[in-house]
Amino acid sequence: MTTQELARLVDGTLNGDGRVEICRAAGLETAGPGELAFAEGDRAQALAAQSRAGCILVPAGKPVSGRTTIAVAHPKLAFIRAAEALHPPTPVAPGIHPTAVVSPDATLAAEVSVGPHAVIERSASVGAGTTIAAGVYLGAGVQVGAHCVLYPHVTVYAGARLGERVILHAGVTVGGDGFGYVFAEGRQQKFPQLGQVIIEDDVEIGCNSTVDRGSLGTTVIGQGTKIDNLVQVAHNVRIGRHCVIAAQTGISGSVEVGDYVVMGGQVGIGDHVRVEDRAVLGGGAGILPGKIVRRGETVWGRPARPLHEFKRMYAHLSNLPRLAEKVKDLSRRMGGSNE
Amino acid sequence: MTTQELARLVDGTLNGDGRVEICRAAGLETAGPGELAFAEGDRAQALAAQSRAGCILVPAGKPVSGRTTIAVAHPKLAFIRAAEALHPPTPVAPGIHPTAVVSPDATLAAEVSVGPHAVIERSASVGAGTTIAAGVYLGAGVQVGAHCVLYPHVTVYAGARLGERVILHAGVTVGGDGFGYVFAEGRQQKFPQLGQVIIEDDVEIGCNSTVDRGSLGTTVIGQGTKIDNLVQVAHNVRIGRHCVIAAQTGISGSVEVGDYVVMGGQVGIGDHVRVEDRAVLGGGAGILPGKIVRRGETVWGRPARPLHEFKRMYAHLSNLPRLAEKVKDLSRRMGGSNE
Amino acid sequence: MTTQELARLVDGTLNGDGRVEICRAAGLETAGPGELAFAEGDRAQALAAQSRAGCILVPAGKPVSGRTTIAVAHPKLAFIRAAEALHPPTPVAPGIHPTAVVSPDATLAAEVSVGPHAVIERSASVGAGTTIAAGVYLGAGVQVGAHCVLYPHVTVYAGARLGERVILHAGVTVGGDGFGYVFAEGRQQKFPQLGQVIIEDDVEIGCNSTVDRGSLGTTVIGQGTKIDNLVQVAHNVRIGRHCVIAAQTGISGSVEVGDYVVMGGQVGIGDHVRVEDRAVLGGGAGILPGKIVRRGETVWGRPARPLHEFKRMYAHLSNLPRLAEKVKDLSRRMGGSNE
Repeated sequence: MTTQELARLVDGTLNGDGRVEICRAAGLETAGPGELAFAEGDRAQALAAQSRAGCILVPAGKPVSGRTTIAVAHPKLAFIRAAEALHPPTPVAPGIHPTAVVSPDATLAAEVSVGPHAVIERSASVGAGTTIAAGVYLGAGVQVGAHCVLYPHVTVYAGARLGERVILHAGVTVGGDGFGYVFAEGRQQKFPQLGQVIIEDDVEIGCNSTVDRGSLGTTVIGQGTKIDNLVQVAHNVRIGRHCVIAAQTGISGSVEVGDYVVMGGQVGIGDHVRVEDRAVLGGGAGILPGKIVRRGETVWGRPARPLHEFKRMYAHLSNLPRLAEKVKDLSRRMGGSNE
Repeated sequence: MTTQELARLVDGTLNGDGRVEICRAAGLETAGPGELAFAEGDRAQALAAQSRAGCILVPAGKPVSGRTTIAVAHPKLAFIRAAEALHPPTPVAPGIHPTAVVSPDATLAAEVSVGPHAVIERSASVGAGTTIAAGVYLGAGVQVGAHCVLYPHVTVYAGARLGERVILHAGVTVGGDGFGYVFAEGRQQKFPQLGQVIIEDDVEIGCNSTVDRGSLGTTVIGQGTKIDNLVQVAHNVRIGRHCVIAAQTGISGSVEVGDYVVMGGQVGIGDHVRVEDRAVLGGGAGILPGKIVRRGETVWGRPARPLHEFKRMYAHLSNLPRLAEKVKDLSRRMGGSNE
Repeated sequence: MTTQELARLVDGTLNGDGRVEICRAAGLETAGPGELAFAEGDRAQALAAQSRAGCILVPAGKPVSGRTTIAVAHPKLAFIRAAEALHPPTPVAPGIHPTAVVSPDATLAAEVSVGPHAVIERSASVGAGTTIAAGVYLGAGVQVGAHCVLYPHVTVYAGARLGERVILHAGVTVGGDGFGYVFAEGRQQKFPQLGQVIIEDDVEIGCNSTVDRGSLGTTVIGQGTKIDNLVQVAHNVRIGRHCVIAAQTGISGSVEVGDYVVMGGQVGIGDHVRVEDRAVLGGGAGILPGKIVRRGETVWGRPARPLHEFKRMYAHLSNLPRLAEKVKDLSRRMGGSNE
C-alpha cells in the first residue's frame, strides 16, 4: 500500500510523500523505510523524529518535521486499522482434516476448517467460517458460532455455547465442573455441576485459562470481554460486556462483574462479590467474599480499598518507623515510665 | 421420579403432594414445576416461599407453607443424593476408539473407554470402568485405577500412579519434573527428578492444574482431596486426606499438608512448610518457607498470621492515619520540638 | 557402577569400600545399600551417620564414620553428575509415528522423534535428536533446535523459534497473542500481535506455562533460564540468561529482566518494569508498573521493597497494637482531651 492509500484508509491527513510503499506495521523504534509506525504521547513524539519508519501516524496538530506522517484523531486506533489491512490473517483452508474425528451427528456450517486430530462429538454445531485447530475437543452438544478461532488443544465440555467471533487460545478449557463440595459423613461430597457456560460474541480468552460451567445456573462471559492467560473463572460467575481481565486473575463462584470493568493481573475475587460497571481493580487486588465494588471505583491492595485510601494508608505505613521513633521520644520526654 | 419416591430416596418426610413428577435438580430461584430445589439457611428459607419449584428439600422443622417439601436433616446433602439419581452420568460406551494409540504392552481392564487420539504407552495399566477421554496421554508404566475419569488433554508422565475414582479435568498434568536446580559453573544445573507421584482414591483435580513428581521421593495427594483449577503442587509435596484446595493456589516443594485442611484461592505456601490437620488458610494467604501452621488454626494474610491477630493488626492499620494525627497533636501540645 | 568408578566420575576421594555396587541415586533418608545419596549442610551431615545408603557424597573434610563416602568440593553438584550417569534418559526411538501429521514442507533433521498425533505445519523445522512428544503442535514456520524435548500437548504458535536443548513441559504454550486492546468506539479493539518469540538454548519451561509473542517486537527468554509451572510471560518481555522463575509468577508486557535473576513463586511484575542482573524477588513480591529493581537487590512484599526495609516495616507493623496502646497511655497522661 502507498502512504496515500493508507491515509485514505484511516481517514487522515497526509503530510509528505504519498507514493511511499508500506508493506508492514512495526514499532516506532525498529520500523524501517517500508514500515508504518505510530506516535502517541510525548515520549513517542520525541522518538518519532529519530524514527526510520517510512510513515508515522501522528495526532492532528503534532507534525514531525522531515518525516512522512498521517495525522489522525487517534493514532493507535488508526494503526490497528492499518495493520489489519497490511497483515490480513492467513486464510485458513476450509475443510475437515482426514484425521479429525467428527460425529456424523454434528452440524458444520459452510467454510469451517477442522484441523488434524480435532474431535467434535455428537450434536455439536460449528458456525460458518470458524476455525477448529489441531487437537481441539468439542463435547456433545457444544455450540460454536460463526467466525470463531479455537487454537490447538482447546477443550470445550459438553453443552457449552460460544457466540460469534470468539477466540479461544491454546489450552483454554470451557465448561469444566465447578468446585463445590459438601463435607459430610467424613468426606467431601461433590455438589452437582449441571449448569451451563455461555461465552458471548467477540470474547477472547488467553492461553490455558479456565472457565467452569455453572453448578445449577449458568456461567456467562459477556460480549466483547477480553481475558488474558491463566485466568480462572469459577462456576456461576457472570461477567458483563467489554471488560478486560489481565493474566492469572481468579474469580470465585457466583461473582457478578458489570460492564467495562478493568482488572489488572493476579487479582483475586472472593465468592459472591459484586463488581459494578466501570470499576477498576488494580493488579494483585484482593476482594473479600461478599463485598461490593461500586460503579467506577478504583480499588487496590489486599484486602482492596479505594485507591486514594490505599495510598494514604500506604504512606502512613512507610512512615511507621518514624512514627514509632516519635512516640518513643514523646514517651522519654514525659518520663518514659510507660514502657 | 415422584416426590414420594424422592422422599424415600433421601429418607425424608414428605409434606404435600406425593405424585408430583420431578425430572431435574435446579436452583431455588430458577426451579420450575418439574424441578427439585433445596433451601438451607435463612435467606434460602425466605426465597423458598416464592419458589416455583415442584418440590423443595428443607431442614426438619422448617416447613414452607403452600409448597411441596421434603424435610431432611441435611438438605444440601440430600439434594446431592437426589441430583445423582435424577441426573445419572451419561454412560460412556466402553471400547477403544480406532484412532487411539494403545501399546500392545499396556493392560486395560474390562469396560474401559479410550477416546479418539488418546495415547497409552507401554506397561501402562487402566482399571475397570475408567474413561480415558480424547487426547489423553498416559506415559510408560502409568497406573490408573478403576472408575476414574480423565478428561481431554490430560497428561500423565511415565510412572505416575492414580487410585480409584480419580477425576482429572482437562489439561491437568501429573508427574512433570520438579523445579530444582543447582547454580554452579555459571549456569543452572538440573537436579535429578527421578521420583514418583501417587494420587490416591477419590481425588479430583481441576482444569490445567499441575502436580510434579518427587525429585528423589514421592509427591502424594491423599484420599478424597479435592483440588480446583490452575493449582500448582510441587515436587515431594505430601497432601493428606479430604483436603479442599481452591483455584490458583501454589504449594512449594517438600510441603506437608495434613488431613481435612482447607485452602482458599491463590494461597502461596513456601517450601518445607508443615500445615497440620484441619488448618484453614484464607484466600490469598502466604506462608513463609519452613513455617508450621498448627492443627485447626485459621490463618490469613501475607505473611499469614492467625486470623484474630490478622484482624486486630488490620484494624490498627486502618486506624493508622488517625494514630499519626494523634501523635502529631500530642507532640504539638508538648512543644513540638521533636519534629 | 562401583563406588570406585563413581569416585573417579565425580573427581572425589573415596573413603571406604571401592567395590560396592551402586545402581540408583536416592535421598539420604530413604537410600538403601545399592543407592547413592549426598549430605550437604549440618542437618544432612547428622542424618548421614544413620543412613543406610551404599555410598554418600560428602564435603571434603567431613567424613562420616562407618560409611562409605566420596569427598568432593560440591556434593550436590557431584550428585547431579552421578545421577546422570546412573539414570541415563530412556532413549527415545527416532522416527515419525504413523499418526503424526507432518507437512511435506517441514524440515526434520536426523534422529528426530515425532510422537503419535503430533502436528508439524508447513515450513517448520526440527533439529537433530529432538523429541516431539504425542500431541505436540508446531505451527507454520516454527523453528526448533537440536536435542530439545517437547512434552505432550505443547503448542508452539506459528513463527516461534526455539534454540537447542530446550525443554517444554506438557501443556506449555509459546507464541500466543499478547494481551493488548484499545478501547474505542464502545469496545475493546485488538492491537496487532505480529511479533516473535525466541526461546534461547538450554531454557526449560514447566507445565502449562504460557509465553506470548511480541506485539510488534519480540519476546525473548535468555539462554539457560529456567521457568516453573503455570508462569505467565507477556508480550515483548525480555528475560536474560540463567534466571530462575518459580511457579505462578506473572510478568507483564515489556518487562526487562537481566541475567541471573531469581524470582520466588507467585511474583507479579507490572508492565515496563526493569529488573536488573542478579536481583532477587521474594515469593509473592509485587513490582509496580514502571519500577526498577536494582542490580543485586533483594525485594519483598507487595508493593515490593528492599528486604531489610520490608522486615523493619513488618516488625513495626506487628508492633502496631502496642504502639497504639502507648499513644493512648501518653494521651491519658497528658489529660486525654485530644481523643
